[in-house]
Amino acid sequence: MNVEHAVSFPVEKFLFVFAIILIASKVIGELTERIKQPPVLGELIAGVLLGGSVLALIPSVSGQPGYETFHLLAELGVVILLFEIGLETDLNELLEVGVTSTIVAIVGIVAPFVLGFLSIIAFQKYGLLTFANPATGMLVAITVGATLTATSVGITARVLSDINKIQTPEAKIILGAAVIDDILGLIILAVVTGLIEASKQGLETGISAVNVLTITLKAFGFLIASIIIGMLVTGKIFNFIQKLKVRGILLLSAISFAFLYAYLAYIAGLAGIVGAFAAGLVLAKTGQAKIIEERLRPVSDLVTPVFFVMVGAAVDISVFNPFNSGNIPILIIAFVLFAVAVIGKFVCGFAVFKEGLNKKAIGIGMIPRGEVGLIFAQIGLAYAVFDIKLFSAVTAMVMLTTFIAPPLLKKAFGSDEELDNK
Amino acid sequence: MNVEHAVSFPVEKFLFVFAIILIASKVIGELTERIKQPPVLGELIAGVLLGGSVLALIPSVSGQPGYETFHLLAELGVVILLFEIGLETDLNELLEVGVTSTIVAIVGIVAPFVLGFLSIIAFQKYGLLTFANPATGMLVAITVGATLTATSVGITARVLSDINKIQTPEAKIILGAAVIDDILGLIILAVVTGLIEASKQGLETGISAVNVLTITLKAFGFLIASIIIGMLVTGKIFNFIQKLKVRGILLLSAISFAFLYAYLAYIAGLAGIVGAFAAGLVLAKTGQAKIIEERLRPVSDLVTPVFFVMVGAAVDISVFNPFNSGNIPILIIAFVLFAVAVIGKFVCGFAVFKEGLNKKAIGIGMIPRGEVGLIFAQIGLAYAVFDIKLFSAVTAMVMLTTFIAPPLLKKAFGSDEELDNK
Repeated sequence: MNVEHAVSFPVEKFLFVFAIILIASKVIGELTERIKQPPVLGELIAGVLLGGSVLALIPSVSGQPGYETFHLLAELGVVILLFEIGLETDLNELLEVGVTSTIVAIVGIVAPFVLGFLSIIAFQKYGLLTFANPATGMLVAITVGATLTATSVGITARVLSDINKIQTPEAKIILGAAVIDDILGLIILAVVTGLIEASKQGLETGISAVNVLTITLKAFGFLIASIIIGMLVTGKIFNFIQKLKVRGILLLSAISFAFLYAYLAYIAGLAGIVGAFAAGLVLAKTGQAKIIEERLRPVSDLVTPVFFVMVGAAVDISVFNPFNSGNIPILIIAFVLFAVAVIGKFVCGFAVFKEGLNKKAIGIGMIPRGEVGLIFAQIGLAYAVFDIKLFSAVTAMVMLTTFIAPPLLKKAFGSDEELDNK
Repeated sequence: MNVEHAVSFPVEKFLFVFAIILIASKVIGELTERIKQPPVLGELIAGVLLGGSVLALIPSVSGQPGYETFHLLAELGVVILLFEIGLETDLNELLEVGVTSTIVAIVGIVAPFVLGFLSIIAFQKYGLLTFANPATGMLVAITVGATLTATSVGITARVLSDINKIQTPEAKIILGAAVIDDILGLIILAVVTGLIEASKQGLETGISAVNVLTITLKAFGFLIASIIIGMLVTGKIFNFIQKLKVRGILLLSAISFAFLYAYLAYIAGLAGIVGAFAAGLVLAKTGQAKIIEERLRPVSDLVTPVFFVMVGAAVDISVFNPFNSGNIPILIIAFVLFAVAVIGKFVCGFAVFKEGLNKKAIGIGMIPRGEVGLIFAQIGLAYAVFDIKLFSAVTAMVMLTTFIAPPLLKKAFGSDEELDNK
């Protein structure tokens, strides 16, 4: 029956757009694989091509018909991806690299923050950026610095999985550091928004040692409690579920568990993907882990590309056009921020003191900012700390780090392999 | 990062609601399975409980935050389900029962239409329904009659699959008849909306033999062409795809194919699920059918329950409250329409002339109206042919047919089995 539904995005359009996303991501993914690059890069490129700034075949901006649904499907995709990666990860091995991960995370936050902060101060000094008053300039510098601290565990985890390196010690260090980074990023976010709020009101409100401590404790408390409680109860629960008869109950129980953990992570103020990752770690210890992993794979195949295509679709490539002379200052700013973003994270690999590890690969693995960086940029725009041009520059930086990491990471591990083979 | 998104339905809420849908549908599905009923009944009941008229835990009315996304996911679920069923169906066997299916479909349209039409005329005669002028009364009678002709292939197909009867000749006849029914339903829909439009304008526009013929040819033409062309090209295409390397490409190509067929079916004026079913029939003939079927299963497990839960959630059980005396006339009308709906479809099983078939099961398999009936009811409301009470009565009829079919169908096949065993 072909009738109008009382929704803004009709079913046929939804199915058509979904098919386009799947086809484009797999065709370009296959091409990138053939030139020996990770398929996730192909999915990002497919997103750029399908997005608003090129073909405009898929909704890529909030408010467009169907955007909300594809945005939610994309989030579902990254939640499923991190759940899958958690399932493949051994918690003991993750804890073994805990100290190393923490050092990597801290260096990977301090270095890019300082570099980003100083860059903005320098831009002001050389007239590339001007602000009405020095206080605003300081706030912009802090917000840009904060944006540079983010790490997108989604992109890196996917690349590591694409190139079959998810089980290496380097991968454990990166994943551990990215999770810690998310917690520290949360604290930075709280401090920065507090600072912005305070500066708007001309007050010293919003930030206090107690607030910062509360946020920190809540986040760490959630992670530790959810993993310990999960380990204690899921073994028996999933043994019971496996005995039930109704079709699909084991897979759906596992997915529901991941969704609820993601939900609880949000409630605790963390990113949902951290909760999904924790859920995977917990279920990896149950006797059903292998079956769940196997059945989860087709689901992950279906929804994960939506996330990477949507990340690519958010890029507005018109700001990169160098033939428009008005873009030059912002292109310089974007380029410097990008260089700072790469260097700032790359150095954190060399904070690793253990011998025999691929430090370059660890540094590169921390580079992509992905959706977490975009969230910071969005806050900067929403609070009017960034104007649209600076927002574009920051977004460009985020996107470039996301695009550059997959080939570099593949290369870093590849050279390692060549050494091993000698 | 826990920040506000520029969408009306935040990610954490989405994941929470999704988890609730999965958990409730599987818990109640397991319980219905234990009392030897098809799990789909449990999913429908889960939907009623979670929907707006009981717990209001999930968006069940158009316009509520998140409704569009879950509505689209539900449609995705039924498209995937029909694709899966198509994959498991042998086209040759379907064609063998083609004549029988056509007879069943035609009787299953004529009988309920006549009975429904006469019931409304009778209600008017006995004062249960009153209209300003006789023309309106006639229009209402025609629209109710049309609503009664629908068959929901989704519900029946799912029940047949639940009780492992999808490979029986009865199942082929029902599925074939339901597909033909959808095409005939489309023509009835065109005629009825044409009649309504004409009556609004006081003109004889909207319906002509040419129009009716065009719609019919387009629908049949689409089905035949899509199956023939599909058979000719997919064999080679899927042999090629199987050789590609990128993860998930075979499954995603198959799903994209189903989505595009569903899209084309919409364009041809058919229900999307008819296209998805045709896509399944086509791919069933490829050498990759078994692998696709196997990998599609977990995806189907995840999204199919969303459809049945959303169908259940649309029920407003307050109109069934007999303690509210204002509900009595409409309860009588609903009950009569329900009886007519059951009898009208049940008799079509006995239009089968072949020996050795379970005629009761075929008749019962045609009973559920599901979403197709709801679409007719919605049109009646949208065009102001139905007032809200008559709409509720028609909706109640649709829902009851949907609820009654699963246990009856199981019973009809069950008694058959007992006979076989003797």
